[in-house]
Amino acid sequence: MQYREIFENAIGKLKSEQRYRVFANLERDTERFPNAIWRPDNGPARDVTIWCSNDYLGMGVNPEVTKAMAAAAKKHGAGAGGTRNISGTSYPLVTLEDELADLHQKEKALVFNSGWISNLGAISTIADLLPNCLILSDALNHNSMIEGVRRSGAERQIWRHNDVAHLEELLAAQPHERAKLIVFESLYSMDGDISPIKEICDLAEKYNAMTYIDEVHAVAMYGERGAGVAERDGQMHRIDVIEATLAKGFGVVGGYIASTAAICDAVRSFAPSFIFSTALPPAVCAAATASVRIAKGRPELRMAHQRQSWLTKHALMRAGLPVMANMSHIVPVMVGNAELCKAASDMLLERHNIYIQPINYPTVPRGTERLRITPTPLHGDAHITHLVEAMVDVWNTLGIPFAEASDIESPFANDADCTYPQKKDCSFPQMKRAAE
Amino acid sequence: MQYREIFENAIGKLKSEQRYRVFANLERDTERFPNAIWRPDNGPARDVTIWCSNDYLGMGVNPEVTKAMAAAAKKHGAGAGGTRNISGTSYPLVTLEDELADLHQKEKALVFNSGWISNLGAISTIADLLPNCLILSDALNHNSMIEGVRRSGAERQIWRHNDVAHLEELLAAQPHERAKLIVFESLYSMDGDISPIKEICDLAEKYNAMTYIDEVHAVAMYGERGAGVAERDGQMHRIDVIEATLAKGFGVVGGYIASTAAICDAVRSFAPSFIFSTALPPAVCAAATASVRIAKGRPELRMAHQRQSWLTKHALMRAGLPVMANMSHIVPVMVGNAELCKAASDMLLERHNIYIQPINYPTVPRGTERLRITPTPLHGDAHITHLVEAMVDVWNTLGIPFAEASDIESPFANDADCTYPQKKDCSFPQMKRAAE
Ligand SMILES: Cc1ncc(COP(=O)(O)O)c(C=O)c1O
Ligand SMILES: Cc1ncc(COP(=O)(O)O)c(C=O)c1O
Repeated sequence: MQYREIFENAIGKLKSEQRYRVFANLERDTERFPNAIWRPDNGPARDVTIWCSNDYLGMGVNPEVTKAMAAAAKKHGAGAGGTRNISGTSYPLVTLEDELADLHQKEKALVFNSGWISNLGAISTIADLLPNCLILSDALNHNSMIEGVRRSGAERQIWRHNDVAHLEELLAAQPHERAKLIVFESLYSMDGDISPIKEICDLAEKYNAMTYIDEVHAVAMYGERGAGVAERDGQMHRIDVIEATLAKGFGVVGGYIASTAAICDAVRSFAPSFIFSTALPPAVCAAATASVRIAKGRPELRMAHQRQSWLTKHALMRAGLPVMANMSHIVPVMVGNAELCKAASDMLLERHNIYIQPINYPTVPRGTERLRITPTPLHGDAHITHLVEAMVDVWNTLGIPFAEASDIESPFANDADCTYPQKKDCSFPQMKRAAE
Repeated sequence: MQYREIFENAIGKLKSEQRYRVFANLERDTERFPNAIWRPDNGPARDVTIWCSNDYLGMGVNPEVTKAMAAAAKKHGAGAGGTRNISGTSYPLVTLEDELADLHQKEKALVFNSGWISNLGAISTIADLLPNCLILSDALNHNSMIEGVRRSGAERQIWRHNDVAHLEELLAAQPHERAKLIVFESLYSMDGDISPIKEICDLAEKYNAMTYIDEVHAVAMYGERGAGVAERDGQMHRIDVIEATLAKGFGVVGGYIASTAAICDAVRSFAPSFIFSTALPPAVCAAATASVRIAKGRPELRMAHQRQSWLTKHALMRAGLPVMANMSHIVPVMVGNAELCKAASDMLLERHNIYIQPINYPTVPRGTERLRITPTPLHGDAHITHLVEAMVDVWNTLGIPFAEASDIESPFANDADCTYPQKKDCSFPQMKRAAE
């Protein structure tokens, strides 16, 4: 058995398929976000603008948040010191859980080390506790949800992405009394599309199913107090389990569920991924609590975020770049080829000091490789101008197709449900959904 | 389907079996560690001494470590801002990985959000990349290792705990050319016993197997530079993959593997639990780096740790308490009954302001419930005296059996391998291994 060779060959195969990833070494700087220092392996460090951060609101560089972290580190130390059961349950962690339960207007919240772990642990534990449970999982659910579904012993059926007719078909085929868990996201981060939460809740009621929603890419950013799309749509009270992260809109790290006391207690008591791992440090919890509190009270942050996102979309589309249409803050620009996508990303960095990671398989299906742009409230209008010029240059240099005029339409013409603050002023054209 | 009832019943069952866990709400304080503030649900806050922390060296309250965290939070922000691939690879994270590779004298290291995730991701990915791999797993391996083994599609065989003869039997029955992965821990945290690393490496060589060791409860604490028991035993270079945590001896949070460049690169490239989750914050990485550097350079911390552990064991045994014998820093005291174990823990807290969590099933087998005491270098001799008096009082009050004289033997009589600094002075009696 030539062990070394096997691993080297696996890597070699990735390289030959253009799927080998190189992580850029970036030094974030609270004073200059979204700018950062990029340290290439060979060559001097350079100043770049990050245009693909999932710290969507820049909360990670908010002085109140970083101060909370620094103060808690000095007061309570750098770590939790144990699992939740073995001395790891800290006062800042309990406070954070209370804050999250309040955010989502649920009886309880339960914090995990990451959103990934919260999906793995919560979905599998809930499904396993329900006798003969059927999991109904959206086809585009995130890897962490799929892992949770797979780890459970429950039967699973996949419904076509956001297709409520298909979901209803599957539900209607089951006995009313059978336990069913509908698992889906509010906002799918690679296409930026939003799920029909109300319709899904209607079906859950009609067919006696539980609902589990992942609001990872929506918390802090949508809803009156930043509780997510379910809050914005007035559906939050109808969802049984809300899962989200502290690492994206809230800018820190960690994950959680918010639900009934009984469900949180059951997951707390039975999920090995929760039980057998050291708790989040008090300093992380204090930072997250500060961030949640800020997000709750400052809708103007969400307004600024939407404004910069829509300005960016508008400007890129005007320039003819193939922006994929959606109703969220995510700005995916289609390339459709792994090699070109990587080349575009490299050229943006090398030539224009703009950092946008190529999104390739397995994160998105092959043939839908893209640049995924995430404007924050801290990307100023000058940043946007620079981005558009750079992208046009790269598209021209590499010969990547621009959008065809016939692809351009107004996204708002027939959309009575659009609730973005900019709706009234928005008359700019937008691309048809490219990936389908 | 009465969903709520199902979860409530599951919790009710735990309660009736005395397995329901209540987490104490503790406020760690860097100035007064190992003392902390305990906030009971009903009643005023109280000052308590924590005797069960896995921040074994108190590194989490080390001022250099907390300062590093606070400074990095202010400079780089509270979070990483994305997965490793999507802008989450920070300069402090890369620095930490270099530091860990150096600690273990391996080509590379790869950092995860927790030790739990590193075991899940690394074991399953490595085993799945090896064609027709057989995993040989120690019977007492930690839950996170079992989850990694289970998640892989590989065949698995369990060898009796620390029984190299049994391991050899299983290895000898396999074709020499078949891929084999031996998965074990260096130090088992609930009994505190240490594995025969050299013998296992000998077998791996003889039978052409890979070795994967979990040094979660040993890093920072054993070996010349704190790289663990494999370093202490001169076996580190023979181990293929070393996994450990940043959350216990190093006092922060996170996990990692150290191995060849090819293996780290393969896990980096193929493990979904690594790929699809936000990276550790720069502030956490900076704290961990500071901690690793301190641990490398200060063997006197390890001496002080061993001294307080052995003093505690000695004093408890002298008082007739049923300490379970082992050659490590862990001090398990057998109770053998879930209800009594919880009552002892409660009484230590209520009456003596001492916090030691009961360790019950599923963390240990039923009938071996225990108090697990973990002295740190910051537990002074007066703390130890107080602990012993309190435990004797609780044992008397609750009628828990003391050790019988016939159980007492000298652990060092026939042990030529003992390498603890105190060996020469140690002539105190110690309990026979209780759990077997
Ligand atoms: C939909 C979704 N759920 C869960 C996660 C995992 O969250 P975390 O990064 O906190 O592990 C992610 C991405 O990271 C995600 O995109
Ligand atoms: C042997 C062992 N491995 C791994 C882990 C998980 O490490 P972490 O707490 O960093 O998730 C633990 C305990 O927490 C453990 O005891």
